[in-house]
Amino acid sequence: MARTASRTILGIDPGLANTGWGVIEQVGSRLTCRAYGCVSTPARMDLSCRLAKIHEQIDAVARRFEPSCVGIETVWFGQNVTAAFDTGQARGAALVACACNGLAVGEFTPRQIKLAVVGEGTADKAQVQYMVRQILGLEDLPRPDHAADALAAAICYVTHGDAR
Amino acid sequence: MARTASRTILGIDPGLANTGWGVIEQVGSRLTCRAYGCVSTPARMDLSCRLAKIHEQIDAVARRFEPSCVGIETVWFGQNVTAAFDTGQARGAALVACACNGLAVGEFTPRQIKLAVVGEGTADKAQVQYMVRQILGLEDLPRPDHAADALAAAICYVTHGDAR
Repeated sequence: MARTASRTILGIDPGLANTGWGVIEQVGSRLTCRAYGCVSTPARMDLSCRLAKIHEQIDAVARRFEPSCVGIETVWFGQNVTAAFDTGQARGAALVACACNGLAVGEFTPRQIKLAVVGEGTADKAQVQYMVRQILGLEDLPRPDHAADALAAAICYVTHGDAR
Repeated sequence: MARTASRTILGIDPGLANTGWGVIEQVGSRLTCRAYGCVSTPARMDLSCRLAKIHEQIDAVARRFEPSCVGIETVWFGQNVTAAFDTGQARGAALVACACNGLAVGEFTPRQIKLAVVGEGTADKAQVQYMVRQILGLEDLPRPDHAADALAAAICYVTHGDAR
């Protein structure tokens, strides 16, 4: 009997205050959710401690679930340089953990992720949460939306692979 | 006989393509240079590998020289969101290494660093390189300028501590 290929995929929605993460399992064409969560760091915490916490917790998720790859959003900031810098720092901390655990990285635009999950590039957060729940057969809506966005990035990886 | 307090200070000039680093030793009011260098990562390399290399090499510097603190520049990007995001990612990778090695972090504006080193907030790169050489008694100008900027950030830490 042929064994159906399976793999574990991490998704990350990076942010300095909130970094969402989600782990999905693909068996053939079936996707299920293993776990999801959000690393929150308070603004009163030292910057380097906030980044270390993000790194440490994403590293712990990667060690626990042993995903082979990760989908991560390329965020669009408009003209907000400060937000881009902060999110960049958080993303760097998370990606170091991914690289150290040997994960293949796929980067996707918000539009690619929405297309993969909702079938429409301009879907709103509520639609993404709803479709992530449907696709993964979750009992409840995944919350917070950072975790839903992370699961969406993981689902997008299944469609796109690590093509950029 | 009273023992003169000494400490080792790391300086970092973060960047995705080039992250400068420098290590100085303070004994009383005397500053000397222990080492400096630059972590370069080619654009053709995977983003997560570039970030992992920055993290790994800054971690190696911290383990080798055992600094107690680090001075790092808060970069000004104007309206260049892409540059802010890239430098943010590199800075996040470097700061995770600093936090994991227990370093106190001092963040300084370019103006604070120039004031501390040259005595003038609008000094150019050549003036910074020249004064870093004078202050640390180096035989040659520290090169590349990323390394000189990193040494300048370390010197600034001596003046400002980790006050932000």
